[in-house]
Amino acid sequence: MIKVGILGSSGYAGAELVRLLIQHEDVEIVFVDSKDSEDVLFTELYPNLYKHIDKKFTSLDISDNPYFDEIELLFCALPHGLTQKAVSAAFKRGLRIIDLSADFRLSDPVVYEKWYNTPHIAKDELKEAVYGLPEIHRNDIPGSKLIANPGCYPTSIILGLYPLFKAGLAPKAPIISDSKSGVSGAGRGLRDGNLYCQATENISPYSVGTHRHTPEIEEQLSKVSGNPAKILFTPHLVPMQRGILSTIYVSNERRIREEDLFKLYGETYRDEEFIRILPPGSTPKTKAVAGSNYCDLAIKVDEDTGYIIIMSAIDNLIKGASGQAIQNMNLMFGLEESKGLEQLPLWP
Amino acid sequence: MIKVGILGSSGYAGAELVRLLIQHEDVEIVFVDSKDSEDVLFTELYPNLYKHIDKKFTSLDISDNPYFDEIELLFCALPHGLTQKAVSAAFKRGLRIIDLSADFRLSDPVVYEKWYNTPHIAKDELKEAVYGLPEIHRNDIPGSKLIANPGCYPTSIILGLYPLFKAGLAPKAPIISDSKSGVSGAGRGLRDGNLYCQATENISPYSVGTHRHTPEIEEQLSKVSGNPAKILFTPHLVPMQRGILSTIYVSNERRIREEDLFKLYGETYRDEEFIRILPPGSTPKTKAVAGSNYCDLAIKVDEDTGYIIIMSAIDNLIKGASGQAIQNMNLMFGLEESKGLEQLPLWP
Amino acid sequence: MIKVGILGSSGYAGAELVRLLIQHEDVEIVFVDSKDSEDVLFTELYPNLYKHIDKKFTSLDISDNPYFDEIELLFCALPHGLTQKAVSAAFKRGLRIIDLSADFRLSDPVVYEKWYNTPHIAKDELKEAVYGLPEIHRNDIPGSKLIANPGCYPTSIILGLYPLFKAGLAPKAPIISDSKSGVSGAGRGLRDGNLYCQATENISPYSVGTHRHTPEIEEQLSKVSGNPAKILFTPHLVPMQRGILSTIYVSNERRIREEDLFKLYGETYRDEEFIRILPPGSTPKTKAVAGSNYCDLAIKVDEDTGYIIIMSAIDNLIKGASGQAIQNMNLMFGLEESKGLEQLPLWP
Amino acid sequence: MIKVGILGSSGYAGAELVRLLIQHEDVEIVFVDSKDSEDVLFTELYPNLYKHIDKKFTSLDISDNPYFDEIELLFCALPHGLTQKAVSAAFKRGLRIIDLSADFRLSDPVVYEKWYNTPHIAKDELKEAVYGLPEIHRNDIPGSKLIANPGCYPTSIILGLYPLFKAGLAPKAPIISDSKSGVSGAGRGLRDGNLYCQATENISPYSVGTHRHTPEIEEQLSKVSGNPAKILFTPHLVPMQRGILSTIYVSNERRIREEDLFKLYGETYRDEEFIRILPPGSTPKTKAVAGSNYCDLAIKVDEDTGYIIIMSAIDNLIKGASGQAIQNMNLMFGLEESKGLEQLPLWP
Repeated sequence: MIKVGILGSSGYAGAELVRLLIQHEDVEIVFVDSKDSEDVLFTELYPNLYKHIDKKFTSLDISDNPYFDEIELLFCALPHGLTQKAVSAAFKRGLRIIDLSADFRLSDPVVYEKWYNTPHIAKDELKEAVYGLPEIHRNDIPGSKLIANPGCYPTSIILGLYPLFKAGLAPKAPIISDSKSGVSGAGRGLRDGNLYCQATENISPYSVGTHRHTPEIEEQLSKVSGNPAKILFTPHLVPMQRGILSTIYVSNERRIREEDLFKLYGETYRDEEFIRILPPGSTPKTKAVAGSNYCDLAIKVDEDTGYIIIMSAIDNLIKGASGQAIQNMNLMFGLEESKGLEQLPLWP
Repeated sequence: MIKVGILGSSGYAGAELVRLLIQHEDVEIVFVDSKDSEDVLFTELYPNLYKHIDKKFTSLDISDNPYFDEIELLFCALPHGLTQKAVSAAFKRGLRIIDLSADFRLSDPVVYEKWYNTPHIAKDELKEAVYGLPEIHRNDIPGSKLIANPGCYPTSIILGLYPLFKAGLAPKAPIISDSKSGVSGAGRGLRDGNLYCQATENISPYSVGTHRHTPEIEEQLSKVSGNPAKILFTPHLVPMQRGILSTIYVSNERRIREEDLFKLYGETYRDEEFIRILPPGSTPKTKAVAGSNYCDLAIKVDEDTGYIIIMSAIDNLIKGASGQAIQNMNLMFGLEESKGLEQLPLWP
Repeated sequence: MIKVGILGSSGYAGAELVRLLIQHEDVEIVFVDSKDSEDVLFTELYPNLYKHIDKKFTSLDISDNPYFDEIELLFCALPHGLTQKAVSAAFKRGLRIIDLSADFRLSDPVVYEKWYNTPHIAKDELKEAVYGLPEIHRNDIPGSKLIANPGCYPTSIILGLYPLFKAGLAPKAPIISDSKSGVSGAGRGLRDGNLYCQATENISPYSVGTHRHTPEIEEQLSKVSGNPAKILFTPHLVPMQRGILSTIYVSNERRIREEDLFKLYGETYRDEEFIRILPPGSTPKTKAVAGSNYCDLAIKVDEDTGYIIIMSAIDNLIKGASGQAIQNMNLMFGLEESKGLEQLPLWP
Repeated sequence: MIKVGILGSSGYAGAELVRLLIQHEDVEIVFVDSKDSEDVLFTELYPNLYKHIDKKFTSLDISDNPYFDEIELLFCALPHGLTQKAVSAAFKRGLRIIDLSADFRLSDPVVYEKWYNTPHIAKDELKEAVYGLPEIHRNDIPGSKLIANPGCYPTSIILGLYPLFKAGLAPKAPIISDSKSGVSGAGRGLRDGNLYCQATENISPYSVGTHRHTPEIEEQLSKVSGNPAKILFTPHLVPMQRGILSTIYVSNERRIREEDLFKLYGETYRDEEFIRILPPGSTPKTKAVAGSNYCDLAIKVDEDTGYIIIMSAIDNLIKGASGQAIQNMNLMFGLEESKGLEQLPLWP
């Protein structure tokens, strides 16, 4: 039994983690923490789990958490700022940590500080962090004490481009990723844009040219290819609960043929349980992955312009957050990587 | 391994059954049949299950199905008319059958013929049918050859009223059930009312005073209490995928107190795994049961008018159809009743 | 040109009022006020009106509003509490007022205080208030200084029952109104229940037996019939932006026939421009009134139980709030009642 | 009074045209035709217009329409194939025609035949057709007998790029338009993808690299700049009723600055009533144009990659179809261009 605690468990990613951990037979949840909901029953906020968890939210001291002796693994789903303090304290206590925030994803604190407008106060721990995208960094995860769980958009985009970059086929021109996310990606925070009447019957781009996931994507892709990657990433908010679709446009400078791309992607991801390469002519649907840890990929070469179009769909709360965190946990603790993630996507 | 076949597997209820059966470790699916989709890959219609089922839809002869020798259990999710022919043929071949249609739910063929405007052509089989609501008829299910799987609306309403009727507290006045269903309840048929632009941003009653689930509810409740039950049932279409909410108004002729109702319901359903009595002051949410086999119940006595208000929420495709079918299958084959139905509801 | 000001104009009802007033050729908007959004451009919150209004929100002193000399009519769309203070100040300055809150709808301050748990501090003004449902109180509106604009739910229910009550056909038994509202009815406030991911794919009852619109409905119906009316009112939240549907169950003690009801309703509302009696067999759809000031009514007598079922649909922001306010304004200022309300409902 | 008839009036674009024409004081509708709905009341399909139109759908002979003598203008909203026959017959009878299909938008019948896989049988009429995008071809419209009303996607994209192309600033590299449409864009046809349960909670690309609007966009932009334009156009289906958002990526080969683009766009569209250039830093929202004839445009130069990003939002049924048709009608008949199109967008 792996004993775990969850900080920031009242948000959608944290609560999805709780839901998945309840169904994971090797895990025992010791505490669910939430600064905003102290002493509230977990199931008051998440009545779906009524009869499955009877805990109340704690609001523990981040630096001196009384449960740190009882747990082996800490999941941290806090906003940045709070995250570094909490991770630092847990790390010093020798706990293993899976952090769902952005705070340990960028290896260079200078880049972090530029994009997040705040100093990084846990630089030592940052050096130890492993970027927890199992399909790329599987071998580094088991031995790690601190996993930086990837962002939702980056997961969809990096998985879509990894085979190209790994094969040395990265383009010189900037890559364009036009990405679309469901509303749960913005969390359960009480913000105007998250309101039903603002989000429904609407699609709109946001953070155009300035979204903080840009350097994360560029860093990871650059590491794969060994050359600086440049990405123009435009996120959009879509009226649905779950799901990210990234439509990625790659200048096809080498005139790679569609069939060769299918071969390349098929081989690269041959043994990956959570990646489905869709048959030629298909396009991914966020509905087809909702409720699961899948990443669905489709490939198309546009005859007229030559562009490669990679389309990638995930459930932002699962493969884009909590499911991936559990994949990482399984790897860290020597369990089967897919344990607790067997649930099939729902349709409708 | 229980070998099963599914007729009518391209509709939403049939496909949800396939999804659940794939995850059930004691079941092997032998064929998926669909008159409309012969030779189409199952996953072309349901890409969520890509990599989990590689079968194509068959379109087999209903009376002389070549797989009847290979299976033990036939699930039938056909429209009425076709159903009776198929069930009759399978029954004669000695197969066990779980029928998701309405054709074997009304014990009196005269009532059937009145509400469905068509003669009943399988009256012998009808006599053998057991109404498969396990919370009421659990003991009759294991020995049955033919289960009539309850309707979605009736499941929500009967489970909401059963404790009252069982305790001899049925009212004399008609009961009003104002029920609301998501769009998947109307199936995947190409009908104008099922179109996105017709159903979204809209709520509307339909079949007011004439819905065919009325006699089913009345028959079942009458059997429980031993007296004729009268129900005014008004269904509404709500812009969501899954879920039924029934708000049931019961004239409180005996002035039963709310706390006594909570006690009664708590005791009646004490050992029921799939029924959750919500705490006083709560109301059920269809979202809290979506993706699960739960029926959530809430109870309120209106101080001013004395009325008892029972509120009942289910996922129409699971507890209202396929999940209940699997509950019945588990009972028929001596398996744990909840096997394959452990999946927790999603939120959001 | 009627010069008007609007308090509470950043909420959905207030902003819809602004939208309609911009299109009303006899009105000039002098100020748009909002405590929460001082100095913000109106179109930053409502980009739909970009190029049509360039005002910023003011946050004026409620009791000593500097624009009170410049306007003839004050629309007040504030939460209760604030409302009474603002209305009282404006009233004393001799302004005419249309109040969209609940504060002047209940004629008895004792009843108000019981349901709102707060003392009523504008009892003198309350005595002057006219309940602004033009279909019932048309003659009292032109001479009034203070209009209490009806609640959204009450508008749908009272209009559905008025012909019965006016004709002396009110039932003795309590009436049940099972009502369903879109999310805009809860306003633009940052509350958890208003979030997209909480409201979508969900239907749930709320305030069961305790909703504050109950006494408003009972008072108005009682006044029409001269006898105390009793209503069991259960509101539900539905995943759509606009629209209220009330399904109203009336015990048919006199065995009135459906055709006689059609005749009665047809005659009662013969000259009403904003009420549409749907043909027998039809049911109202909130989508069919969205964007308009219509109230659509359908009538059904259930053969089996005898119950009369009245179904009523409105756009909660228009006939349920701002459109009705403009109807009242038109009547107060001697304009054609439908002026500025000609916009047809959209479909889809 | 302009007397008009509408072919194909039961689809969403046709019915929206009827709705707008009813509100247009200079127009009289003589007939509403629909092959699928002969003798059905218009308001049975569109109950929103109950009390505003009492006509039944006709199903007239396309070539020998008995009303051709009574009308001056024919709106044609038929599928291609049928269109050419109908337009040809009306044209020969001397009627003026606004055609909402794609059949007269491509000036070269060879290109048409390549993309539509069918011969063009009205080549003479094709020569007379004017592409009815008033912001570009305003001067050619009044004298025209046959207007090819632009496609919905092309309207959003061409209006987004026109200032660049007109100013000689078209890029050499292909332009990428990642476009997103609400479901009404696919019409009211009974197709699986149009079903509520298929479209909701889902976003998916379709017709990747093969959508028939591609040559229309390329032809129009090429004519503006005098050089062949190349566009990579990827449409997506989004779970909303109305709205198209195009996010357009333009290689910024001349390093044009954002402020200069704002100046250029501002000047180009200075007198355009239906085009709103949003302030710097804003992004368009489909909700902000829904129910109106507006095209909202936003401009961004990405600092990092240099790309110009043009974002364009329209209501696909209005500016993308029926509203634009009325703009064209107004121009043809010497009316004010915005007549009948004054309705403001709704929010929410």
